[in-house]
Amino acid sequence: MPLAFDVAAIGNAIVDVIAPSTDQFLAEQHLAKGTMHLIDGERAAALYAAMAAGVEASGGSAGNTVAGVASFGGRAAYIGKVAPDQLGEVFTHDLRAQGVHFETPPLGGAEATARSMINVTPDGQRTMATFLGVAGRLTVDDVDPEVIQGATITYLEGYLFDPPPARMAFEKAAALARKAGRKVSITLSDVFVVERWREPLMAFLEASTDLVFANENELMALFQTADIDAALEQIRGLVPIAAVTRGPAGSIVLAADQTHEVAAFPVETVVDTTGAGDQYAAGFLFGLARRLPLETCARLGSLAAAEVIGHYGPRPLVSLRELGRARGVDLG
Amino acid sequence: MPLAFDVAAIGNAIVDVIAPSTDQFLAEQHLAKGTMHLIDGERAAALYAAMAAGVEASGGSAGNTVAGVASFGGRAAYIGKVAPDQLGEVFTHDLRAQGVHFETPPLGGAEATARSMINVTPDGQRTMATFLGVAGRLTVDDVDPEVIQGATITYLEGYLFDPPPARMAFEKAAALARKAGRKVSITLSDVFVVERWREPLMAFLEASTDLVFANENELMALFQTADIDAALEQIRGLVPIAAVTRGPAGSIVLAADQTHEVAAFPVETVVDTTGAGDQYAAGFLFGLARRLPLETCARLGSLAAAEVIGHYGPRPLVSLRELGRARGVDLG
Repeated sequence: MPLAFDVAAIGNAIVDVIAPSTDQFLAEQHLAKGTMHLIDGERAAALYAAMAAGVEASGGSAGNTVAGVASFGGRAAYIGKVAPDQLGEVFTHDLRAQGVHFETPPLGGAEATARSMINVTPDGQRTMATFLGVAGRLTVDDVDPEVIQGATITYLEGYLFDPPPARMAFEKAAALARKAGRKVSITLSDVFVVERWREPLMAFLEASTDLVFANENELMALFQTADIDAALEQIRGLVPIAAVTRGPAGSIVLAADQTHEVAAFPVETVVDTTGAGDQYAAGFLFGLARRLPLETCARLGSLAAAEVIGHYGPRPLVSLRELGRARGVDLG
Repeated sequence: MPLAFDVAAIGNAIVDVIAPSTDQFLAEQHLAKGTMHLIDGERAAALYAAMAAGVEASGGSAGNTVAGVASFGGRAAYIGKVAPDQLGEVFTHDLRAQGVHFETPPLGGAEATARSMINVTPDGQRTMATFLGVAGRLTVDDVDPEVIQGATITYLEGYLFDPPPARMAFEKAAALARKAGRKVSITLSDVFVVERWREPLMAFLEASTDLVFANENELMALFQTADIDAALEQIRGLVPIAAVTRGPAGSIVLAADQTHEVAAFPVETVVDTTGAGDQYAAGFLFGLARRLPLETCARLGSLAAAEVIGHYGPRPLVSLRELGRARGVDLG
């Protein structure tokens, strides 16, 4: 029987180290709030030594998203590279325990499994410093054609533009998906990623993308404008569907002939926004794979994002399917 | 300048793997709810494969306690054994980041750093399966006399009775502390530990203990009685101070001429009781080291326990000192 998934994702396989922090600490460490910084091993050791005590949780943007898709009851697959070390085992366990198909072989004898040090300020914002380690060694050979061809939607991280071999894997997956008549989606991931890779990202969006996820800052960086309305109209002209997140203001979904503004779900206490965008994508992708209306897709995204910002860690701690039922959201 | 600590603790240095679970899963895995089971590497692998996705956090009963003492603003030291692996680095970082003195050399070439798989049921109860790994290789040579002699109170885990070399370290520490005119405290840790080591535990309590922590079940197991009132009077006769935790009912403190019943602090939602007893001990030990009245010690314990059961993970996520101030508790 051929493999069949709602969503297959490719991403940097990362374990998060999440700790409470302060604006002063971010300033001392020269970390721009709310963004992701790539750091080398030496800097990672120094930063870790300076950070507060924390907790560890499997992360990686696309990994978080497929965990969320599975939590909605969707069938999900993941492609990403870990090392055969303790954190690699944790990452692998957590995806498989969530029911995600994850068979990319670990790579020994190179770097360690990637770690992202996530500093959470009292306002719930997260600022990330990522040591990519072996995650950057994902290659085209790791892209299993059966997985991509069997997935209704292939989902790609903008973060993958950073490590060159991973970017080739990314491009192979997109080509395979399109050739099989499947949908391709991408998240812009981070404003610095957009600034580093604006031209190839733009080309990819125009040529190969059915659905793009972005927040407002990423979108304005992409079109080099401070005018969010102009950026929204530009993305509408570029990609069939754009889902733009706006933090507490919810999200806006743009298609050629449709615009939907969808409110955020209420959250009692914002503890840690790590994974909010990833879980929004999870809900949206699940809904789209199940052919739900775009507005419902966005509501599923809001629901999942609200769950994850109520606690430390980037993946849902409860079944999103059950949560959706309890809140009366259409799950198809 | 000589070292000076409020509390020095010796314990099994463990990283927790905490995941949501169900009563059915505990039954299938033959795990008695609310207790700690020692398992070997093979069983650990099988259990981990069956467990849900989780988060990792530094743990170990006494490690949690000294982290809590430091969070109250106390000076704390820890003695315990990790391996030079990723989880050992996490454990070491988290204690030092909290300001705890931790200089026990890691042991390479043996087992991995200890892991405890903690299954949290929807009622917030935690059931633990621990692979002791290198933690059991703590020896008398690891007990730094300067640390013990410099500590107002030495705190020992009942769990240390399980690995024989660790138990010898435990006994050496107690002897050093007493000889230096310092206080010795112990937690009974777990009802199975009490049943396995009843006689040596009893002898240790009678000969060398100034302060014992226990919950009601552990106390009844110690005195082999189903009558909690009888057990309370027996422990009062055996040890100068006994602090007995009673879950939501708070705690009772017994000394020769004093009895204090102290209520639990209100908790909005019980998420995960992992570390509740450890944090109770942290507050109590901090208070006692600072010569606060026994009733205040118990209130500090209740405060710390309430913080930790409101979230996943066994150590406080906020400053207990600030929390205590905010709640108007006397911190000395």
